[in-house]
Amino acid sequence: MPLTVSSAPSTKALWRPALADIAEAAERLRPHAARTPLLENAQLNERLGGRLLLKAEPLQRTGSFKFRGAYNRVSRLGAEERARGVVAYSSGNHAQGVACAAGLCSAPAVIVMPADAPKVKLANTRALGAEVVTYDRLADDREAIGDAIARERGLTLVRPYDDPWIIAGQGTVGLEIAEQCAELAVTPDAVLVPCGGGGLVAGTSTAIRARLPGAEVYAVEPAGFDDTARSLAAGRRLANSGAAKSICDALLAPMPGELTFAINRELLAGGLVVTDAEAERAMATAFHYFKLVVEPGGAVALAAALAGKLPVSGRAIVVVASGGNVDPAHFASVLGRAQPI
Amino acid sequence: MPLTVSSAPSTKALWRPALADIAEAAERLRPHAARTPLLENAQLNERLGGRLLLKAEPLQRTGSFKFRGAYNRVSRLGAEERARGVVAYSSGNHAQGVACAAGLCSAPAVIVMPADAPKVKLANTRALGAEVVTYDRLADDREAIGDAIARERGLTLVRPYDDPWIIAGQGTVGLEIAEQCAELAVTPDAVLVPCGGGGLVAGTSTAIRARLPGAEVYAVEPAGFDDTARSLAAGRRLANSGAAKSICDALLAPMPGELTFAINRELLAGGLVVTDAEAERAMATAFHYFKLVVEPGGAVALAAALAGKLPVSGRAIVVVASGGNVDPAHFASVLGRAQPI
Repeated sequence: MPLTVSSAPSTKALWRPALADIAEAAERLRPHAARTPLLENAQLNERLGGRLLLKAEPLQRTGSFKFRGAYNRVSRLGAEERARGVVAYSSGNHAQGVACAAGLCSAPAVIVMPADAPKVKLANTRALGAEVVTYDRLADDREAIGDAIARERGLTLVRPYDDPWIIAGQGTVGLEIAEQCAELAVTPDAVLVPCGGGGLVAGTSTAIRARLPGAEVYAVEPAGFDDTARSLAAGRRLANSGAAKSICDALLAPMPGELTFAINRELLAGGLVVTDAEAERAMATAFHYFKLVVEPGGAVALAAALAGKLPVSGRAIVVVASGGNVDPAHFASVLGRAQPI
Repeated sequence: MPLTVSSAPSTKALWRPALADIAEAAERLRPHAARTPLLENAQLNERLGGRLLLKAEPLQRTGSFKFRGAYNRVSRLGAEERARGVVAYSSGNHAQGVACAAGLCSAPAVIVMPADAPKVKLANTRALGAEVVTYDRLADDREAIGDAIARERGLTLVRPYDDPWIIAGQGTVGLEIAEQCAELAVTPDAVLVPCGGGGLVAGTSTAIRARLPGAEVYAVEPAGFDDTARSLAAGRRLANSGAAKSICDALLAPMPGELTFAINRELLAGGLVVTDAEAERAMATAFHYFKLVVEPGGAVALAAALAGKLPVSGRAIVVVASGGNVDPAHFASVLGRAQPI
């Protein structure tokens, strides 16, 4: 279904992915991506007085959900486009997803990453065979750098979220959640999704609203980067101030995407916001109960449920843990100060 | 099939579980246990030049495989036995498995644990509703304490490994590995299993030798606690010296079990031994590539593969990560000094 969009400078077509596009992405991903488990812990449930189900995307290829969208996009390029290669800008998880997808499709990849990205993300992106170009996150415009490289070298730009194929790929998370809830015979009341530019929550909500219409979908953001929550409340896209800081390096997009926001304003029940301390507590809780390594940005949806941003008691809540790419020293320091609930 | 055993003081019958007993345990466990994923990482495979598949038992209920055997045993007790309750001695993972199984079966549980067990294991066992009795691991005889409590209070002793139902329950790990390998169309050359008293490897090898006869099964132990490796070489049960130390708290059984050794001597290809430093490197590697929290003893099979104790290059090797119950401070310290491969 075509969308009216005000401007889309270097995207040829912004159309809105439907459930069928997500199902098709799932077929395309099947040989390459993991069907990550939906984890549950009886003791944690008892503590919360409800059911909390955690979609474990740290167990996805490249350690985050980003491989899903990247592969769904890159694998659709023609032979000539593949031969020329792709470029992406990313704080690190999209970087790894695109580098891995490009490798599988025999396409060269250039990735534009902030110089202060977690070392594990920089190292893994290089290990996946990509050329990494770093920039200053506070001074430079990553989109301009990415666009310039794409033009100069004739590369295809793989956007991190404002692309229908990317959104359809991320939506396979929602499709799997719906399937896994059916297998468990549980009907969730809400699905909580970490949100940066909004691609994961746009795709997930498209699948969830179609398959589990009784479940409300929420975007969860770190404090100071609550552009989607504020935009949803205002009914139009609002940017972050640019002055805030957060340990949630994966979720620092400047404002909602054009296409993602068009989807999210229609499908989401709202936006929830958590502090860095709440995200750290969620990381410690995931370590303790789920034995899972979750990075700060990946832990915000769990954090929202644990911190009571919406009721869990007597209900069934799905939280997406979106990634686990965190430097060991950082993870160790979080374990040193944060307590599980 | 009945086994000739020299002595079995407080076990009424030592019989040897067959594949059918494991399949029956799998049915019994289905509503309560997780079917843990068999994880794989493309980058790690590339580094190793082969395929390494990791069975992720830290994601099992209670954070280790031990719930499988415990539930298979406790759920078979009659109403009267359940009402009186169960007792177990354990370094901590069997403790949690029995406490959880007893809770599900409405049976009171008394667990005899070393006073120096990881805090997380002591706390979780209590949180699962069990009464914890601590003992001095170096001075006291845990079996004697367990037997005495069983006699005095009329409780059923749930042994950690030398029990056919326990072995059949742990064997569901092997059954799932065989199923999951079939789903992936991979025929493993070897399956590596952490070994304390030998229950997990006895059950797993029973399933693997029946379902994947081309795969060799190895027990993996920490240096200084290589009683099974030495016993397999000698053809008879040998004890550990008692003087050694290891961070692998889950694998410090004094000697192979009677029933477990009778099975293992027939089915295993041999025993492999790793150092604590190799186990720590495996923990760091599991953190980095699999985003999984693995405790020291749970990491020894992965450690053996990474340290080249048997060839991985050009082959497909399954390693069982048997548990993830590790104190956060200990885990953080390992991340501080150990590097992934």
